[in-house]
Amino acid sequence: MSVTEPRGFTAAGVPAGLKHSGTRDLALVVNTGPRNSAAAVFTSNRAVANPIIWSRQVILDGVVSAIVLNSGGANCFTGEQGFQATHATAEAVGDALHVSASDVLVCSTGLIGEQLDVAKIQAGVEDAADNLASDGGGYAAEAILTTDTHTKTAVRTRNGYSIGGMAKGAGMLAPGLATMLVAITTDADLDARALDRALRSATRQTFDRLDSDGCMSTNDQVTLLASGASGVVPDEKEFTGLLTDLCHDLAGQLQRDAEGASHDIAITVTQAASEDDALEVARSVARNNLFKTAIFGNDPNWGRVLAAIGTTSAEFDPYNVDVSMNGVRVCHAGGPDEPRERVDLTGRECTVLIELNAGAESATILTNDLTHDYVHENSAYSS
Amino acid sequence: MSVTEPRGFTAAGVPAGLKHSGTRDLALVVNTGPRNSAAAVFTSNRAVANPIIWSRQVILDGVVSAIVLNSGGANCFTGEQGFQATHATAEAVGDALHVSASDVLVCSTGLIGEQLDVAKIQAGVEDAADNLASDGGGYAAEAILTTDTHTKTAVRTRNGYSIGGMAKGAGMLAPGLATMLVAITTDADLDARALDRALRSATRQTFDRLDSDGCMSTNDQVTLLASGASGVVPDEKEFTGLLTDLCHDLAGQLQRDAEGASHDIAITVTQAASEDDALEVARSVARNNLFKTAIFGNDPNWGRVLAAIGTTSAEFDPYNVDVSMNGVRVCHAGGPDEPRERVDLTGRECTVLIELNAGAESATILTNDLTHDYVHENSAYSS
Repeated sequence: MSVTEPRGFTAAGVPAGLKHSGTRDLALVVNTGPRNSAAAVFTSNRAVANPIIWSRQVILDGVVSAIVLNSGGANCFTGEQGFQATHATAEAVGDALHVSASDVLVCSTGLIGEQLDVAKIQAGVEDAADNLASDGGGYAAEAILTTDTHTKTAVRTRNGYSIGGMAKGAGMLAPGLATMLVAITTDADLDARALDRALRSATRQTFDRLDSDGCMSTNDQVTLLASGASGVVPDEKEFTGLLTDLCHDLAGQLQRDAEGASHDIAITVTQAASEDDALEVARSVARNNLFKTAIFGNDPNWGRVLAAIGTTSAEFDPYNVDVSMNGVRVCHAGGPDEPRERVDLTGRECTVLIELNAGAESATILTNDLTHDYVHENSAYSS
Repeated sequence: MSVTEPRGFTAAGVPAGLKHSGTRDLALVVNTGPRNSAAAVFTSNRAVANPIIWSRQVILDGVVSAIVLNSGGANCFTGEQGFQATHATAEAVGDALHVSASDVLVCSTGLIGEQLDVAKIQAGVEDAADNLASDGGGYAAEAILTTDTHTKTAVRTRNGYSIGGMAKGAGMLAPGLATMLVAITTDADLDARALDRALRSATRQTFDRLDSDGCMSTNDQVTLLASGASGVVPDEKEFTGLLTDLCHDLAGQLQRDAEGASHDIAITVTQAASEDDALEVARSVARNNLFKTAIFGNDPNWGRVLAAIGTTSAEFDPYNVDVSMNGVRVCHAGGPDEPRERVDLTGRECTVLIELNAGAESATILTNDLTHDYVHENSAYSS
């Protein structure tokens, strides 16, 4: 059900002909009220796609009637013509739903640097509007996939209201955010400012800590729409917790479907002098290609972990660092500890624990290994 | 001839049994004078190997009698026992050559986190000392190789003096410096301070701009020894230029032998607001796995170039950037320009030109593509 689980939302997903495969590639999510408050966070990449330029303006007043999302083309670095395509997409939704185009968020994903076929999008929007349904969330979740192998959805319910979400993203997963598109709906009765606080708090702890391949996308957008249809005004702290839990669920689904990955790696840094230090160290290891290939080879090469830590500005003494992999402490005080043969990396799950012995803060970054399949998928994507 | 081309140097390379293969794995380079001034630059990684800790002290007075280099083990993260191994290595050289151990630089390369066999090293040092020869540079260049497929050497001669160098390194090539060991000799008559100025200037323009896989080593060391045997006191500017040219030659050899690479990529950024901006942009592209896999697939995916530029803090407008690949301008003003089909990436050489249109500075970073062979070599290295 995903985004149509909460009351006050309809959705559709249709094939608009943008993808050569002929599968669903255009999704529409509509807030039927009674309220239509919204919040969104966008990629922190300075080179952004046209839908991001558009949507940043739409979200300013915290009012959103609908989101239209397409796969089959990122509409990024497509110049004035590309921006007109985004504008025309929002206009088509406005016409079909009798709402203002300036209340329509647009999201696009796919290859960068290619123009979208506006006529196909306009026809697709009409088709989607005709097919809107209160159980259409599943089709919508299908229509936003690119190299994903399956849909990613999650639902949480509490004290009379619910939150539903759908996500896509299988590569370019990096902080702030990733090549992810996420649409989340709730029937809780919250205004745009409360939604914004909750969404920023939740993404900071979840999507921002997913760093599959260190590459930051130009198109990422995470949106939260509230219909108020439950009539429930939740405690904001409780709502933020529930939203964070749902985002964590979706982030995990993105990690487990990352392009070509054979391991899901959680890198936890403890005893750091600050949370920023913990994040910097975890991210440095997560982005180290030698570490990532070692894990692919089921090799608990802790020397590469320490070498990656050494490139950071975090507070630590290389000769007072402990590293454990899948529960076996292979490095103590910067030297060899348990024999590396004791580490079993044959499963998909891999945990790396780095004890910095410099403070009391901690953080976890989720990443993946670097595999032959990653190289294959990304060398062949646009051809 | 490499390091024995300049007068006043002898060298040897012998099998000491550190490598399972039984090939040469211990090199000795000796300065026979009349002067023995030296300079060295080390990795900027904060987690460094025992030979780096040792050699940083040796170089302080600018006097070096010999360098001993071993492959078959990095002696990094090996604790107190590892430091004793480095110390014992220098002592063995001191005993064999009747010089002070505190004038002996030690370099090690190979797997991190394993102890070296000191007895083998001591026997190897004696063997090497017995085999020192004024034409031994070739054997020395062989003995420092790890995953390199061939030796890297270079020689330059000018106005009565010469410079000779040997290098090793095929992975972990990143700035400041890389997993490279480089030993350079000259018979020019220069003191340690002049050597230091020349070496820092040369490495900043060459080895520091080689960024094969973004991973910074714990063991890098580039050393310059002067014997003064030519009796020529060169113009410092001329000497620095000649040294830079030799380092550029060696850096290119390292790039062309990088682990598993199928393309040698030169990323040049022009019209940047500052040299730092140019370097940051070029390095960001060089380290982007999506860009690197695209080049492996002969795919001129300029969108990934712009997405990488967008993650930097450099001064630029994404809609005023031009990108050319192998001479074809595929992106103009942040949008599509020439058809990507016109770019021929089937050869090994690849040039990426990024015109930021924000100033007058420029810089070039050398890198490689990300290939199946890179993944294979680095997932299997320690097993």
